[in-house]
Amino acid sequence: MGIRPNSHLTYIGKQLAKLGHTIQRNVVIRDQPADIERIFNESWEHSDVIITTGGLGPTTDDLTRETISEIFGLDLLHDDGVEQTIRERFARIGREVTENNLRQAKILDGADVLPNDYGTAPGMWLCKDGKHLVMLPGPPHELYPMFEEQVLPRLQKEGLVGTGQAYLQLRTCGVGESHLESKLQPIFDRAGDALLVAYCAHDGLVDLRLSSQDEQILSWSDVEAVGDECREILGEDFVCFGEHNVAQMILQQLRAVGRTLAVAESCTGGLLANAFTDVPGASKVFLGGAVCYTNAVKVEILGVPEPILRQHGAVSAECAAAMATGAAEKFSADHAVSVTGFAGPGGGTSRMPVGTVFIGYHSPGGVWSRRFDYPADRLTVKARSVAAALDWVRRKLKESEMEDVLSSMIT
Amino acid sequence: MGIRPNSHLTYIGKQLAKLGHTIQRNVVIRDQPADIERIFNESWEHSDVIITTGGLGPTTDDLTRETISEIFGLDLLHDDGVEQTIRERFARIGREVTENNLRQAKILDGADVLPNDYGTAPGMWLCKDGKHLVMLPGPPHELYPMFEEQVLPRLQKEGLVGTGQAYLQLRTCGVGESHLESKLQPIFDRAGDALLVAYCAHDGLVDLRLSSQDEQILSWSDVEAVGDECREILGEDFVCFGEHNVAQMILQQLRAVGRTLAVAESCTGGLLANAFTDVPGASKVFLGGAVCYTNAVKVEILGVPEPILRQHGAVSAECAAAMATGAAEKFSADHAVSVTGFAGPGGGTSRMPVGTVFIGYHSPGGVWSRRFDYPADRLTVKARSVAAALDWVRRKLKESEMEDVLSSMIT
Repeated sequence: MGIRPNSHLTYIGKQLAKLGHTIQRNVVIRDQPADIERIFNESWEHSDVIITTGGLGPTTDDLTRETISEIFGLDLLHDDGVEQTIRERFARIGREVTENNLRQAKILDGADVLPNDYGTAPGMWLCKDGKHLVMLPGPPHELYPMFEEQVLPRLQKEGLVGTGQAYLQLRTCGVGESHLESKLQPIFDRAGDALLVAYCAHDGLVDLRLSSQDEQILSWSDVEAVGDECREILGEDFVCFGEHNVAQMILQQLRAVGRTLAVAESCTGGLLANAFTDVPGASKVFLGGAVCYTNAVKVEILGVPEPILRQHGAVSAECAAAMATGAAEKFSADHAVSVTGFAGPGGGTSRMPVGTVFIGYHSPGGVWSRRFDYPADRLTVKARSVAAALDWVRRKLKESEMEDVLSSMIT
Repeated sequence: MGIRPNSHLTYIGKQLAKLGHTIQRNVVIRDQPADIERIFNESWEHSDVIITTGGLGPTTDDLTRETISEIFGLDLLHDDGVEQTIRERFARIGREVTENNLRQAKILDGADVLPNDYGTAPGMWLCKDGKHLVMLPGPPHELYPMFEEQVLPRLQKEGLVGTGQAYLQLRTCGVGESHLESKLQPIFDRAGDALLVAYCAHDGLVDLRLSSQDEQILSWSDVEAVGDECREILGEDFVCFGEHNVAQMILQQLRAVGRTLAVAESCTGGLLANAFTDVPGASKVFLGGAVCYTNAVKVEILGVPEPILRQHGAVSAECAAAMATGAAEKFSADHAVSVTGFAGPGGGTSRMPVGTVFIGYHSPGGVWSRRFDYPADRLTVKARSVAAALDWVRRKLKESEMEDVLSSMIT
């Protein structure tokens, strides 16, 4: 059913896992009518809800609509409202509507239209024989919001998925999965066998998911108590409950005290600025950043003193600190973060191989810099360096918050 | 088998599709021994090759190794070489080895070790009953290179997957899927029913994949001839055969003529610089970039004239052009690209709603800017703006190449 080899099931699986559901069957097939028909029939027989993604596009290799229409013997009816929406969208992006675009205005007889505010192909929801068929477009930037805004609420309303939380998530940073487990094992042992623990490492973070296998033995509030104990033990390595983004947490914290932020990047090449600017409303705090790929540009744009580059080189604690201070000055920002290092595949020395990165941080309270090592390929070094820089700033802000509290207690 | 709900099968599916293979069965299951055992046994019975991803981590919820050892009745043996590698890696990133990390040194009796240069868990390859079991770690930055460097070559060597190309890919930009099909239909009609055409839209590009359903009727060289005809019709909308990255193509072209590049970004917030710096060796051409999120920073860092901001605003063709020129001057670069616009969710006006973006381009031959509209959510506007900027520069460079050829013919 046009479930192409892609990551949609990851996404849908994650969304449903939060509510305690597991995808029973995930089939990736080609856009061939015979394959679609065989797999669809098998799935329809064994499931209460089937979600198809993709295959609703305008071209002749998009066959989901047509194949399902044939399987069920249901006509595809032209929908004037959908045609109108398609025409308006094309006018807006300045493209002409072709005949095959209008195939996307064909709706399965009896299905509800799921409007698509993010693309041309609408989704459909068909109730038949007490079962539900949900057909969604494939592009992630259309699929994801449609799933969250329309599909999930309706699945919940129809009682097909739960509304409660399935697990308690603790987001951590700075401790590997194995250390985390060693550290927390005594807590888990005390909680007993009803406690289910899962780990998910991604983007330099490790998420810890706690749930109960038996609510009679271990209630939700028992799970929450375990979570609080873990938080205590983890100290600064605890980032948050849930899934807050570290860049967003930093921006919120600075915004709360009316402070601004700038960045200066060498090896991360824009990825750090991008992490901050992905956050809606970032412009309230984030003023800008400079990507400085050469020494000359570091001097010209950030005002890094030439003697620092001559004596210590561009990949050094000294240069990282000077870049942070330079960014704070040039962008007139209160806080600034910098990254400089060897992302590879070229560059690096025996003492500082590829993966050697220095992070700098300038705040009204001072300037710091530190080394970070993560031997890996170019894109991983970039991503891990950004994660490390974000985590370090998060910790520094926590410290300064504590100092503020202490100094306010003294005065 | 620890095949968690993630995108690995996307990746493996794509790699194998290039060689003409389709994933027969893609099962996503939980890290539960009973589930793993049931699904594994079913898969083992019906397949020649099974690839598992994930579940090789150090924590107790990683159960692939142990469960498969029990199913096959094969011992897990400690491997000193693997332990040594794990210890070296931890020493390098400055972390201590814990007891549970050493679980990753356990190898299934009789399996070959697939060394992991990108993380701690090695992969394993077990040949049994004429079948192949390949166990790979889950993190994409470990899985992907291991699959390409070790698994694919061995699958090919064992004759389990083909070595030939399964389809001819034309990468296009600037034409939607539906227009592409309308434009090329006459060529496809002439080629006949043996021609298989598939479309894949991603990142603002549309890939067109041509293959033959019957080599007797339509040979590979016939497919190539169809590809050449399509290229002809597509003109500048044709990007390349295969899957070259547009940022990489731009850098290569500039490098060939000894030119340098800088960027200036507002709404894309670092993502454009990041696209260039993702390319290995980018520093030969790319000097740097400025992310300027406020008017003051546009003036200070890029030297955008204040009257332009007052009269036209920061989201205007005039500002985009001034940003590009400013970036070229401040970074001493020959070429510069700029982006300014409303990424949302806030901002925008009735005449210029969220998704309105201006792209600027400065080259030794002049300065240009143009408007681009893509109504969507914040992250999609960012991504599409970067794709549009890259494509525009690609076209401009093609034009100037043609002019160089013409002017060299005249002189």
